[in-house]
Amino acid sequence: MSQVHVYDSTLRDGAQAQGISYSVEDKIKIVERLDALGVAYIEAGNPGSNPKDLEFFRRLGELKLTHSKIIAFGATRKIGIRPEDDNNLRSLLSAGTEAVAIFGKSWDYQVTDILRTSLAENLAMIGDTIAYLKAQGKEVVFDAEHFFDGYKANADYALQALAAAAEAGADCLCLCDTNGGTFPDVIREITALVVARFPGVSIGIHCHNDCEMAVANSVAAVQAGATQVQGTINGIGERCGNANLCAIIPNVELKLGKRCLPEGSLVHLTSLARSVSEIANMPHNEKAPYVGNDAFAHKGGMHIDAVNKNPISYEHINPELVGNSRRILMSEVAGRSTLLARINKLDPSLTKDSPETQAIVDKLKELEHEGYQFETAESSFELVVRKLLGMHKPFFELKEFKVIVAEPALSGSNSNALIKIAVGGEEEITAAEGDGPVNALDKALRKALERFYPVIREMKLTDYKVRVLDSDKASAAKVRVLIETSDAEAQWTTIGVSTDIIDASWKALVDAIEFKLVREQGN
Amino acid sequence: MSQVHVYDSTLRDGAQAQGISYSVEDKIKIVERLDALGVAYIEAGNPGSNPKDLEFFRRLGELKLTHSKIIAFGATRKIGIRPEDDNNLRSLLSAGTEAVAIFGKSWDYQVTDILRTSLAENLAMIGDTIAYLKAQGKEVVFDAEHFFDGYKANADYALQALAAAAEAGADCLCLCDTNGGTFPDVIREITALVVARFPGVSIGIHCHNDCEMAVANSVAAVQAGATQVQGTINGIGERCGNANLCAIIPNVELKLGKRCLPEGSLVHLTSLARSVSEIANMPHNEKAPYVGNDAFAHKGGMHIDAVNKNPISYEHINPELVGNSRRILMSEVAGRSTLLARINKLDPSLTKDSPETQAIVDKLKELEHEGYQFETAESSFELVVRKLLGMHKPFFELKEFKVIVAEPALSGSNSNALIKIAVGGEEEITAAEGDGPVNALDKALRKALERFYPVIREMKLTDYKVRVLDSDKASAAKVRVLIETSDAEAQWTTIGVSTDIIDASWKALVDAIEFKLVREQGN
Repeated sequence: MSQVHVYDSTLRDGAQAQGISYSVEDKIKIVERLDALGVAYIEAGNPGSNPKDLEFFRRLGELKLTHSKIIAFGATRKIGIRPEDDNNLRSLLSAGTEAVAIFGKSWDYQVTDILRTSLAENLAMIGDTIAYLKAQGKEVVFDAEHFFDGYKANADYALQALAAAAEAGADCLCLCDTNGGTFPDVIREITALVVARFPGVSIGIHCHNDCEMAVANSVAAVQAGATQVQGTINGIGERCGNANLCAIIPNVELKLGKRCLPEGSLVHLTSLARSVSEIANMPHNEKAPYVGNDAFAHKGGMHIDAVNKNPISYEHINPELVGNSRRILMSEVAGRSTLLARINKLDPSLTKDSPETQAIVDKLKELEHEGYQFETAESSFELVVRKLLGMHKPFFELKEFKVIVAEPALSGSNSNALIKIAVGGEEEITAAEGDGPVNALDKALRKALERFYPVIREMKLTDYKVRVLDSDKASAAKVRVLIETSDAEAQWTTIGVSTDIIDASWKALVDAIEFKLVREQGN
Repeated sequence: MSQVHVYDSTLRDGAQAQGISYSVEDKIKIVERLDALGVAYIEAGNPGSNPKDLEFFRRLGELKLTHSKIIAFGATRKIGIRPEDDNNLRSLLSAGTEAVAIFGKSWDYQVTDILRTSLAENLAMIGDTIAYLKAQGKEVVFDAEHFFDGYKANADYALQALAAAAEAGADCLCLCDTNGGTFPDVIREITALVVARFPGVSIGIHCHNDCEMAVANSVAAVQAGATQVQGTINGIGERCGNANLCAIIPNVELKLGKRCLPEGSLVHLTSLARSVSEIANMPHNEKAPYVGNDAFAHKGGMHIDAVNKNPISYEHINPELVGNSRRILMSEVAGRSTLLARINKLDPSLTKDSPETQAIVDKLKELEHEGYQFETAESSFELVVRKLLGMHKPFFELKEFKVIVAEPALSGSNSNALIKIAVGGEEEITAAEGDGPVNALDKALRKALERFYPVIREMKLTDYKVRVLDSDKASAAKVRVLIETSDAEAQWTTIGVSTDIIDASWKALVDAIEFKLVREQGN
């Protein structure tokens, strides 16, 4: 099986994205995960332009990596000096990596009008720099910036830039669609021509998503013979992003039959993608091909019936191949058969026409209208059904709470909560301080309940999300709170909606606790 | 200039997306905006499967549309009955539209194994249904479901399905990549073959994004001769979404030189895309090609310098062509030259090396580290700079506030805020009730200040967003609040970060008010 080398730039080109700023610890975690997945190259930073990267490269030197080579990235030497006198190249070498990437100009206009030097000097800058780095024993990737735009403007000069790199010993010539404006047919045609022209060198592709074609362009280049694909996890990158490796890798492995990762690695793709979103502190794109939560989610009633008959009806691949899974969504459109399957887990005797089923459908519509979304909050959904079926007895009664946020602080903390609850006629009143009003209320509620239900000590809130539903109502807007809770055995998500964030959080908190207690009862 | 007919399915196939549920009013607004943009067809719903759609079609009948034809969508007749006896077709006709779309099977496996009928009966279902609808005077689009998978499995049968539709008088044969698993080269090859085979009929394309190739696939079909492109605004749709018209339309108009919209319409694309996100209550994808806020945003220092020299350096088109604009981002990576340009607006005498500039850079880093993002909150950024340059005198002093959220409610409302401020030595104490604690505090603060600064009555909070920054800390997580404020002349965004949502909101509120007052002072 032929091999395509995956070249990840999540830490370098990805860091150009709006809203991205990694700490050194974040970067180390990402490198470890990419290595575990088995990408061939990790472009870790640009030591010339960012001195903080040098500290990171020092840390990287201490890591034991199994699959990946670390790449330090930099530019060709400055105009009119020797490579050995160039400070940026000195920084690049001091990163101490086995391999480096050097970007240079291949579009004549960029040389004359942006770089402001002669076409000949630019070729010398490429050749000198690469020859110098090869003499230092480095593996060298040459990134031909704006290659496709350059080729369209002046094919001869663009190819001369590649030739200068190849003759100086570059191991890979990577063709960059820097502005992301090229279409797959053009990428394929030009890449094929370059592959034929430079038979002894590996050809790479580096695309941007400005026409929403970065994945198609990268795959087209592989079809034309490119053997290195550059991109980023989840397509993180400047403007519209870089080519998304999480789509390219399965496209190439599953559809072109070429190998990108070590055998058996593809099933870890979804978890890698989610963990990079988490580390980069970006909401994961749930509609992302292959690795999004929705990628294999079915909502339309007819689609669900067909998928139940045979998944290939509405799934282009088996989701397990990339570590994802099929989901059947709760919603008005989903149809009663889906809903009934859920209900039957609690009461197998109910049918599509039972009055209880109708009552649940009506309640669901009412709550969805208020802003509830049970597609993610399946535990709150189960509690709604239990309540309507008379299967739920509240575990406690709220007598009152008061949350006070004060500036200046009343006690050691700005936020305090007082709560009074009753369990089986026995009352408990307590209070807690917190980081903010929701945290204070959460702590006070748990404290009040622990005496009655010691098992709630086992549960931990692991995620808290707030979404403003009608943000044009500004500070009076309705908010939806989702809370994710875990214990040693499971993870569950609950929801609350209200114009009051504390009330919305309260509802989700109560559901989180009650779901835990329902599970403990084993019914 | 040759014409490509845009066929929008935001309301029908888009409604299959997870988290989407439009009200009738939402749908009317979307139809009006699509018509104003000038799409040729609007697929508005499926009256057979969703009886609520009929009410919507009645409402649509009352609208005067300029550019768009409304399409009602439905299936071929059921097995073994006449079209005139089919309830779904009856509902379809009762929608009273000039044009309809009918989907039918073109993959032999889907006919035998999912539909469970004979290959011949499926062809009759297609032919009968279309002939019947043509006899009722309808313009008919035939959606050949799973066409590309069908063609790969049994090309002859897939073409027979198209022929049955064409012979019955279908006006358009639309080729669907229902599962989204096909690549552009295959789409192009098969579409070209169909175009040649059915010269008298318009050929359409309908793609899904499961390989992140829906846009490339749609464009490939247009290159092969398809004259109708189906898709949705922002690519809303089931699983990974439908083909994104907001990328396809500019790709086809600006890069293939074919017309999709009435002349002069393309500049409204960005505002249409944003308004559909708003109506559908989805966060707009700011990285979206052409129509995202980040699509022409530049962050890297070197990129910014080059774009300043000439935008084509890092922009594949002029953003104004699609109604978007270039943005130069504030950030550590952006480099001092960008930052300095901002600072110089306030104090032209400062240079890159002034100690004040260094102090601002340091403060910016510190705040970014805390979770601030000034890329969107430019007004808060301006206030930070003013404060560091000694150009800002606070408009009021906070003496204290107390926000109390109580269950059961203490007064008529669950949330109450008390506030005491001082302006020039004069104190004011007041209180307000609100929908939630932030709203109560917002109202109390404005009430206290109005006596001193009556102009704040002109300002209105128009957007309120909350983002949980470290959601794994659950209810103790840090939150970032963004507040957008408007008056008759301008709109500005301010930011606050804290573990306490009330404190974060407070910071953003104070900035919003102070920015208004700074502007009023005209300095």
